Amino acid sequence: MADTRFFRREGPFKLEELAKIASAQLDDESEGQREFKDVAPISDAGPEDLTFLDNRRYAVHLAQSRAGACILHPSMAERAPKGMALILSKEPYRAYASIAQAFYPTHAATPGIHPSAIVSDRAEISDKAAIGPGAVIGDGVKIGDETEIGANTVIGQYVEIGERCVIGANCALTHCLIGARVHLHAGVCLGNRGFGFAMGPLGHRDVPQLGRVIVEDDVEIGANSTVDRGAGPDTVIGAGSKIDNLVQIGHNVRLGRGCVLVAQSGVAGSTQLDDFAVLAAQAGVAGHLRIGAGAQVGAQAGVMRDLDPGEQVLGSPAMPVKRFFRLVNLWNRMVEKKGKADE
Amino acid sequence: MADTRFFRREGPFKLEELAKIASAQLDDESEGQREFKDVAPISDAGPEDLTFLDNRRYAVHLAQSRAGACILHPSMAERAPKGMALILSKEPYRAYASIAQAFYPTHAATPGIHPSAIVSDRAEISDKAAIGPGAVIGDGVKIGDETEIGANTVIGQYVEIGERCVIGANCALTHCLIGARVHLHAGVCLGNRGFGFAMGPLGHRDVPQLGRVIVEDDVEIGANSTVDRGAGPDTVIGAGSKIDNLVQIGHNVRLGRGCVLVAQSGVAGSTQLDDFAVLAAQAGVAGHLRIGAGAQVGAQAGVMRDLDPGEQVLGSPAMPVKRFFRLVNLWNRMVEKKGKADE
Amino acid sequence: MADTRFFRREGPFKLEELAKIASAQLDDESEGQREFKDVAPISDAGPEDLTFLDNRRYAVHLAQSRAGACILHPSMAERAPKGMALILSKEPYRAYASIAQAFYPTHAATPGIHPSAIVSDRAEISDKAAIGPGAVIGDGVKIGDETEIGANTVIGQYVEIGERCVIGANCALTHCLIGARVHLHAGVCLGNRGFGFAMGPLGHRDVPQLGRVIVEDDVEIGANSTVDRGAGPDTVIGAGSKIDNLVQIGHNVRLGRGCVLVAQSGVAGSTQLDDFAVLAAQAGVAGHLRIGAGAQVGAQAGVMRDLDPGEQVLGSPAMPVKRFFRLVNLWNRMVEKKGKADE
Repeated sequence: MADTRFFRREGPFKLEELAKIASAQLDDESEGQREFKDVAPISDAGPEDLTFLDNRRYAVHLAQSRAGACILHPSMAERAPKGMALILSKEPYRAYASIAQAFYPTHAATPGIHPSAIVSDRAEISDKAAIGPGAVIGDGVKIGDETEIGANTVIGQYVEIGERCVIGANCALTHCLIGARVHLHAGVCLGNRGFGFAMGPLGHRDVPQLGRVIVEDDVEIGANSTVDRGAGPDTVIGAGSKIDNLVQIGHNVRLGRGCVLVAQSGVAGSTQLDDFAVLAAQAGVAGHLRIGAGAQVGAQAGVMRDLDPGEQVLGSPAMPVKRFFRLVNLWNRMVEKKGKADE
Repeated sequence: MADTRFFRREGPFKLEELAKIASAQLDDESEGQREFKDVAPISDAGPEDLTFLDNRRYAVHLAQSRAGACILHPSMAERAPKGMALILSKEPYRAYASIAQAFYPTHAATPGIHPSAIVSDRAEISDKAAIGPGAVIGDGVKIGDETEIGANTVIGQYVEIGERCVIGANCALTHCLIGARVHLHAGVCLGNRGFGFAMGPLGHRDVPQLGRVIVEDDVEIGANSTVDRGAGPDTVIGAGSKIDNLVQIGHNVRLGRGCVLVAQSGVAGSTQLDDFAVLAAQAGVAGHLRIGAGAQVGAQAGVMRDLDPGEQVLGSPAMPVKRFFRLVNLWNRMVEKKGKADE
Repeated sequence: MADTRFFRREGPFKLEELAKIASAQLDDESEGQREFKDVAPISDAGPEDLTFLDNRRYAVHLAQSRAGACILHPSMAERAPKGMALILSKEPYRAYASIAQAFYPTHAATPGIHPSAIVSDRAEISDKAAIGPGAVIGDGVKIGDETEIGANTVIGQYVEIGERCVIGANCALTHCLIGARVHLHAGVCLGNRGFGFAMGPLGHRDVPQLGRVIVEDDVEIGANSTVDRGAGPDTVIGAGSKIDNLVQIGHNVRLGRGCVLVAQSGVAGSTQLDDFAVLAAQAGVAGHLRIGAGAQVGAQAGVMRDLDPGEQVLGSPAMPVKRFFRLVNLWNRMVEKKGKADE
């Protein structure tokens, strides 16, 4: 059970309500009135909890689970223990997400400007926004309805933030325009000047960075990640993109819709990721490239060329995943052969 | 000599006191009354300084060193120049650590709440704690004796911090429980929601992250590192673990006791590191794995499978260290053979 | 055109003025009186804009460009469309940097200490410095003329910052001495204790870190980067060095003049980079090494040995660039041969 100091739970909910929330089907309609009080992991859940099974790695836990109800793929239904109510979904994790959101909805902060915040007279702050203690809001800033600005966050002049955003503590935003329902975690830095300068043996000379960062609707950016503003064009984070912690996005980069960048990955300047492209953890993409829609770059991979839509690569330099694993197999054989030769 | 603006030195100490502090032996007991004023690196130390020799790479400096005293391994004693007092220890670096701590002890901050801090009436702050300027402390927070909260750090509601902790400037802590004697450097972010969502072509759906971050006693976390809270279970940082700068720890990760994670390394969600496991710089471990006790992951290695206790790996994908170096040798030969064939 | 909310433009400028600013030549002196209002990328520029061509990748855009003027290499002049005024330079990007700086000069912040800043009585702040809202300045700090301290930045006691520096928002500086014209972006952490401790099965013991961070003149450090103070010697960032976002510099590291460290790269303790050495993104250098002047470490490379001046390496472990690409070719052949054998 979630720690009630940190999390406020709603409910209980009837099973038929939960199935509806998840756009999913009950395995047995007659169980629709059973009530559930909480969600829980499959190995911890009790009779009043609902759980889910998505990763087949955890299927071994299903038979022993004491959960009162489980969301799972129809093909797994017959493996469930007797008495466990089942919600059937072809996307169990997605269904679980909706149900867990119903039990643990996000709560808007209380509107108002904390007296310790330093807010320019020339900022336009919605009456429904919540500005945290010690936040600093510059001239010409616009902040939308029900948006929350975290404690000690600094919003530079003329930055615009849409409605229902959550900006974490200690963020520093400058030269950027932010859409609606954007979530920035603590320590995010947006809009610093890109890493642009003319190198030379007598010293490097800065090139003014004259673009902005555009963050479209429904984007999430993780703690201490950084997005530089463009050099001339803008840096753009497409709608619905998910960026994890400690990720670096260089100047002029354009992410399409729904891109996913896992922790410590990075994208060099002027590269474009098309919709739903994915970078796994610690992956890097060189500058001036185009990564096709839905392409997937594996963990620690280093991409030095354009990728086709849907291409899946791994390795540094990155190559198609199958090729990479074939190569690793060949390496293994080389080493084993050598080992035998040495005996 | 350390810059006295930044460091306050104690002493002088007699050699016998220093040997006792280090739990080590004097090479010549008759020198126990000699006094020493400071510690210094082997190439800079003078007659009133104590130095140490640990890394044999620096043994060449021993004969020329002007240090009045040196902590070293008994086997190195005969290489020391005449007149240099010797403290013998099988762990010279550890012995040095204790002695240097005696010369340069950490000083507790003056207790009290800075008038510019914004502290909830419903927080429980020890009278012996020190809350820095501009710090923001939420409802229900508990802070223990002699704990210091850095300037402009933000502590979210119901966070608990034990005694004798040092929390640096500009940290952002939420959804976490912290033990005693924990040291967080500047910019650390704990307890943000993990990177959990159901991916889908029409948009990604957030999965509520209902766990916490538990930081056990004596943990150190470096500047701008990030630890996400668990999805349901907690994320746990085991007692005495040392985490460097810019490290990422994903949701549900469990570190055992005394783990060491060097700069820019990362651990993906739900992976467990057993006691005293080590990740070198820029290494990464994939999710849902178990890294055995004392296993060592080399710099930039990428671990994609469980590791046995004590296993040492390198490469991406990671393999046993010896195997990796054998493979690198084979690569070298391939290239050289090819070079010759091209001539 | 740059967003005028974020950028203040000067001008217009006559072409002859711009050529002089760039220390470059007009292709046709008779055009010296033509006026230009702005700079713009080659594909967006209009008749009153000046653009540049540096990366030959973009040469295809030259013939179609509507730019009124272009800075380019003399060898490209004949490819320009008729009517486009030309400024000829062997370093077009460097020339553009100077001109763009003339159109968009940096503006010093208004001097003064914001009333919400918390500044020690024992700090020495120039009357011409600008201290932002919520900044915290400790005892004995010195801040030079025309230096700007960002909002909510924390400057620890006895830190010294020279003239004409720009320190971003939410930085945390301790145990450091900073020269003139240094630019730290948001979230930079300088001077935290290095990752130094004696490891042991009963717990790790901290080694006091008694050095400082010395940042020489004209250095730039990117958002959320971290530089640890030395263990005994200082950590030194040489004059004119450029450090990107999320970079880690360990204790005792010494960077020479004009070094360039791209995003997410890292340098382990006690390593020295000589003048103008370059680390590309996500590269890492192990500890106790020496990287020769002008050496270049490619993206994601992992350096485990000293590098000669000018050496160019790639791969992990790093090897000469040509050798690395030869090796990659051999890998490709191995996989293709295997693929055929399997058919």
